[in-house]
Amino acid sequence: MSHIRLRCTRCGAPHAADMATLACDDCAGPLDMEYRPRGQGGKAADRVAWSDVEPPSPLHDPPSALSLGEGDTPCAELPVAAELIGLRRLVGKLEFLNPTGSFKDRGTAVMIGVARELGVRELVEDSSGNAGASVSAYAARAGIKAHIFAPAGAPPAKLRQIAAYGAEVHSIEGPRDAATDAAVAYYTEHRLVYASHALSPYFLEGTKTFAYEVARQFEGGLPAHIVFPVGNGGLYLGAWKGFDELRSARLIAWVPRLHCVQSRTVMPLVAAHRGEEWDSGAQTATVAGGIAVGAPARRDQVLSALRATNGAAVAVDDGDILRWQSTLAEREGVYAEATSAAALAGLEQLVLRGVIGAGESVLVPITGTGLKDTPPA
Amino acid sequence: MSHIRLRCTRCGAPHAADMATLACDDCAGPLDMEYRPRGQGGKAADRVAWSDVEPPSPLHDPPSALSLGEGDTPCAELPVAAELIGLRRLVGKLEFLNPTGSFKDRGTAVMIGVARELGVRELVEDSSGNAGASVSAYAARAGIKAHIFAPAGAPPAKLRQIAAYGAEVHSIEGPRDAATDAAVAYYTEHRLVYASHALSPYFLEGTKTFAYEVARQFEGGLPAHIVFPVGNGGLYLGAWKGFDELRSARLIAWVPRLHCVQSRTVMPLVAAHRGEEWDSGAQTATVAGGIAVGAPARRDQVLSALRATNGAAVAVDDGDILRWQSTLAEREGVYAEATSAAALAGLEQLVLRGVIGAGESVLVPITGTGLKDTPPA
Repeated sequence: MSHIRLRCTRCGAPHAADMATLACDDCAGPLDMEYRPRGQGGKAADRVAWSDVEPPSPLHDPPSALSLGEGDTPCAELPVAAELIGLRRLVGKLEFLNPTGSFKDRGTAVMIGVARELGVRELVEDSSGNAGASVSAYAARAGIKAHIFAPAGAPPAKLRQIAAYGAEVHSIEGPRDAATDAAVAYYTEHRLVYASHALSPYFLEGTKTFAYEVARQFEGGLPAHIVFPVGNGGLYLGAWKGFDELRSARLIAWVPRLHCVQSRTVMPLVAAHRGEEWDSGAQTATVAGGIAVGAPARRDQVLSALRATNGAAVAVDDGDILRWQSTLAEREGVYAEATSAAALAGLEQLVLRGVIGAGESVLVPITGTGLKDTPPA
Repeated sequence: MSHIRLRCTRCGAPHAADMATLACDDCAGPLDMEYRPRGQGGKAADRVAWSDVEPPSPLHDPPSALSLGEGDTPCAELPVAAELIGLRRLVGKLEFLNPTGSFKDRGTAVMIGVARELGVRELVEDSSGNAGASVSAYAARAGIKAHIFAPAGAPPAKLRQIAAYGAEVHSIEGPRDAATDAAVAYYTEHRLVYASHALSPYFLEGTKTFAYEVARQFEGGLPAHIVFPVGNGGLYLGAWKGFDELRSARLIAWVPRLHCVQSRTVMPLVAAHRGEEWDSGAQTATVAGGIAVGAPARRDQVLSALRATNGAAVAVDDGDILRWQSTLAEREGVYAEATSAAALAGLEQLVLRGVIGAGESVLVPITGTGLKDTPPA
């Protein structure tokens, strides 16, 4: 692994790029990927055609990457939502059109691709559904046995999908965190790789392609704002990393404002951004199960990205989430899961508060398909 | 509608291009779209860059088409399936990554786009699931009220999806044909437009984009064979039409062999291709519900395309379909519905029989997602 190493996001200590190291040995901070310079000058941007721009990858052999056609998701105008919210223009990036039905495939393709290069034969992941399905699919393709630890209360369609790919599903009673605890106990006991989408630095190296695509699709006019539903921050932080790389390479002049939306019942990032305490034990159920993460491992990185991009963090109610889920399906023809609709509910607030102006361009990722998490009848 | 008219595929009679005419007034044959020449010479191919090639469209204003990001689906290598079948290389085109989860969106986008241009406010469709979901989604986006007539026994996830888009679902007891009869009675009584994916010539104008994409994605080396699961022939005939247009425009030199796969329990096309009688009353249930069409309206066109491309038609057993559905998910990471897996079962037969040689290149469309039609536990 000559071209990469890991660096602690908290204390800056360097670590070797393997799949066993998931946190800093010194301070337990989360790790990020760092690329060693490959001897290219800083003026490359002037000569690079957009179609040639590929993000740096931890894979040694990216062309043979474990592809199922992830990424390159289409954008669709959302004219009804724009009008209802009071925006001149709103664009959705249809991330649910990734191979397993959510944006997670971007991160998983790289994470499992690295695992395959390293000869991993068996791995563990915990997930409320989408990440588990994604890891199961790519592990199946890589010939790697996957153990997925999921809350017993996860949507049945998600659990069926995970099982269909041949993964071993470990159904864990109790809250979401219980599945994480069980996964940690299992991989420790069996000395397996923990392919955690929340912790693995390889995962973010995959989700950063989101930013590269946005820059290409909106060439000459980046959206001023991108509004994300955020739990662990897998897409949010990937996008931030991608935009930051593009700006460093002088391929874009500025970075869109990256906003976070959480459910009011599980809002650790919103609280921290406001400087308030938040008791993760106090969380209650939400329809936005995909972002119900009480103690996000990369919390401090999300807060840094909010500050760096002048982003806002807002909390939304389940009623508004469900209303937007229906509106997207019935008026725009976009069948999204509730978690994805949270972004629209948050966007509505941001416009009402004047954080986003009516004439500004806005992008919303539609992160997951409604097919796995059917709206209440 | 100056640039298009409809022409009977049986007797050749011309008809005006509206949405009310679904069959020939003279002989009741199915209709196809015909484009009036736009004064371009026959040598265009020499000057055209592939990225500029757009199929002729019945829409007057294609750029404002009713897009949800349909088409441009990715291709993925299927190395495990290739090895199991005995092929050097097999590629899947992941049609289930269309906006509502199946290839139908290609046809629906054009069919509903034309309806919107013509000011249609309310329409009727009958479907076992995928077409109904697709019509519901695009109708929702176009602000058109949709009535979907579906068999009561259709997969629940498909019915929920149709309803989520706000369509009125008419659940009809009895076999698949009963839903068609009920739809016909309803549109006749209420004088509504019948947006039938099986009959509408506009639908095939959308699915033909499949061929244009294949020609672009495989530039310089078209696959020798494409193996389709076929019920009404919506994708099969669209592909044939697209390849035929490309060859007429001298953009490709030859057309791949286009093969049909049906379920052994519902095989009117296979029987007709062999010159055998087939009693549509004798059909029994199959796991491949998406191709269980006892009396396909465009049967004769499918037979013509089979002859024209030297295609074969084969029937497969449910057991083989389910085995391939599992193999695709567990070994390739591709979660397809059973109907889609029928193509792999058919391909296996074609290689065993020597119709397809081990060294020839083969493409298989993976037509629909497994998320809507879960495999039996």
